[in-house]
Amino acid sequence: MLSRTIKEQLRGIPTPFYLYDMQLLGATLDAIKNEADRDGYKIHYAIKANNDERILKAVLARGFGIDCVSGNELRLIRRLGFPADSIVYAGVGKSDTEIRLGISEDIRAFNCESLQELQIINELAGEMGKRARVALRINPDVDPQTHRHISTGQADSKFGISYREIDQVAEDLATYKNLDFQGLHFHIGSQITDMHVFELFCRRVNSLVEWFVEKGFPLTYLNMGGGLGVNYNSPETESMPDFKAYFDAFRNNLKVSGVETHFELGRAMVAQCGELISRVLFNKINSAGAQVVIIDGSMSELIRPALYEAYHEIENLDARPGSSRIPYIIAGTVCESADIFATDRLLPELRRGDLVTIKSAGAYGASMASCYNMHDLPRVVYSDNI
Amino acid sequence: MLSRTIKEQLRGIPTPFYLYDMQLLGATLDAIKNEADRDGYKIHYAIKANNDERILKAVLARGFGIDCVSGNELRLIRRLGFPADSIVYAGVGKSDTEIRLGISEDIRAFNCESLQELQIINELAGEMGKRARVALRINPDVDPQTHRHISTGQADSKFGISYREIDQVAEDLATYKNLDFQGLHFHIGSQITDMHVFELFCRRVNSLVEWFVEKGFPLTYLNMGGGLGVNYNSPETESMPDFKAYFDAFRNNLKVSGVETHFELGRAMVAQCGELISRVLFNKINSAGAQVVIIDGSMSELIRPALYEAYHEIENLDARPGSSRIPYIIAGTVCESADIFATDRLLPELRRGDLVTIKSAGAYGASMASCYNMHDLPRVVYSDNI
Repeated sequence: MLSRTIKEQLRGIPTPFYLYDMQLLGATLDAIKNEADRDGYKIHYAIKANNDERILKAVLARGFGIDCVSGNELRLIRRLGFPADSIVYAGVGKSDTEIRLGISEDIRAFNCESLQELQIINELAGEMGKRARVALRINPDVDPQTHRHISTGQADSKFGISYREIDQVAEDLATYKNLDFQGLHFHIGSQITDMHVFELFCRRVNSLVEWFVEKGFPLTYLNMGGGLGVNYNSPETESMPDFKAYFDAFRNNLKVSGVETHFELGRAMVAQCGELISRVLFNKINSAGAQVVIIDGSMSELIRPALYEAYHEIENLDARPGSSRIPYIIAGTVCESADIFATDRLLPELRRGDLVTIKSAGAYGASMASCYNMHDLPRVVYSDNI
Repeated sequence: MLSRTIKEQLRGIPTPFYLYDMQLLGATLDAIKNEADRDGYKIHYAIKANNDERILKAVLARGFGIDCVSGNELRLIRRLGFPADSIVYAGVGKSDTEIRLGISEDIRAFNCESLQELQIINELAGEMGKRARVALRINPDVDPQTHRHISTGQADSKFGISYREIDQVAEDLATYKNLDFQGLHFHIGSQITDMHVFELFCRRVNSLVEWFVEKGFPLTYLNMGGGLGVNYNSPETESMPDFKAYFDAFRNNLKVSGVETHFELGRAMVAQCGELISRVLFNKINSAGAQVVIIDGSMSELIRPALYEAYHEIENLDARPGSSRIPYIIAGTVCESADIFATDRLLPELRRGDLVTIKSAGAYGASMASCYNMHDLPRVVYSDNI
């Protein structure tokens, strides 16, 4: 809930813009650090969620590493001072140029997503006269019970190495002279809020680790990925996930010893600290009789509702006392029918000029923004800097 | 079908990139011009489909105008030399700054999408001591029988002024001193391939025009929007839409006289001239046993399959003679399950390094691109410049 003072200060800023609550970000990162440090868990921030430099610096200040998925991300975090040893690199489609960059930087691990990627990393490392540290991303076939677009660890997924190739990958590994095998990597999906999913996941991982050890591949690295969900429905009452419950699921169910355990959190770190602030441009009534409010934000700035039918809480920052709640369609400016933030959403009366905030937009908001309809990329405002 | 020579020249270009066939673009624009000129129809290119400057210059060279939807688009086309009188401006969410820009440029018409927008344009024009030329975008409640995300003219849409507000808008118009009423604007949706939809649409428009004339608002401007579909399933056999059939639907069914008739074509002009060229990075088999091909393009460069489940023809430019066809999942590099270009797609064997083209990507391809996963914006290559 924004204070009245901050609201007044926001009023002069051209909309739409992202507002990042740096205090909430800090508190969230500290909460993660407290829980993770208890077990010596290594935390990597999934930079794809939001590559804002101030956010990255706050992550760096806690001693967290980075989970990156492209050469440009790797270049940015190295420039900001993240140690190479704190960087892991995932992604199904690493180009040769990107692989060479990761090898020359000597990153902590490539999380390899296919037999062929493993082969290519071995070849390129050989050409460079270097060794590459690799982990295998195994697809554990765990149903994360989430939206089909953000589940990644099921059988029909494009991600990871499947069980059916596991004998082959062990055979291959034994022959690759330029790879230092570190261990295993997993990521079963996003926005998981049922801790039982992680318990089931741990049991799968236990048996996989055992299998690799028996095959003669002792592990020093185990990366459990991310996937912890946030409360999009009620960000005010739950401004950060229950990190204790999350890490407890692993503490209590992961039965492996002598390995460094890594986690990759993105959404859980930054979703709640961001919101997209827009202004009401027009009210109208459509042919079906519904009240439509046009705000000056759009799917160009925040595509999650259009792409995933994602729910975001919306608040009228200029709600009048005693105003009755009206069912609104909240629409963006872009010339696409998909550019709708909410339908049938009960909100206090919205009038031209009112400031409207779309909450929980810190993750996969600005990082997915486009310039469609030739919009400028959304500007960013920090709560400690207004 | 790309010639062998062009394919060889493409091989040295870093992927992914958009390739624009400038000859096909020119032929398409000429075909439209031939048909439109027969009746003196005014053509506006919907710049949101693709704002590439060379495409815009080809449009300008034919004497076409522009349909823009943002201040940045308006600034770009004025800089390129499009006359103000050839520019129409639509969009549900025009900001005050954008409206002032359109007024000061004295564009051909604001296509107004709400009662309140009309009121605001009148106010701002008054403040500027200017007059603004306006048309009313009326929602004609015609079902375009297309994907729900690209239909715009139905009752539950955010677009246009609804029938239920039509008495009010006539009343309002009579009182606005700073507006020059030009006429009516419509746009019923995209990717319409059944000409009967346009016939039904014309009949609706005929009665609406009659209504406005009876109310004492003679029209000089009638803008029928766009919506003509292209053949995404077989671009090689139908490299441009049947523009004669399209304009015939209006010639034969639009019963209005003494007005300038305008059209706004976007997709139909540029979809088929563009393709996204990528390279195969990896082959893999997922847990369900399906063959997955990872290419170095992604939803960051072309989001239509992820956003609309859009179908695009895909071709292996390096197909080996006699190669059998294999059912592939064609996946992009981005760390999203939605980043899939095709599933169960029969294609000649694809191997690492093969060039792959995704066709019919000239419209809503580059203009919707993002930098998600910190990808660079896709580069563009022109067929007459390689």
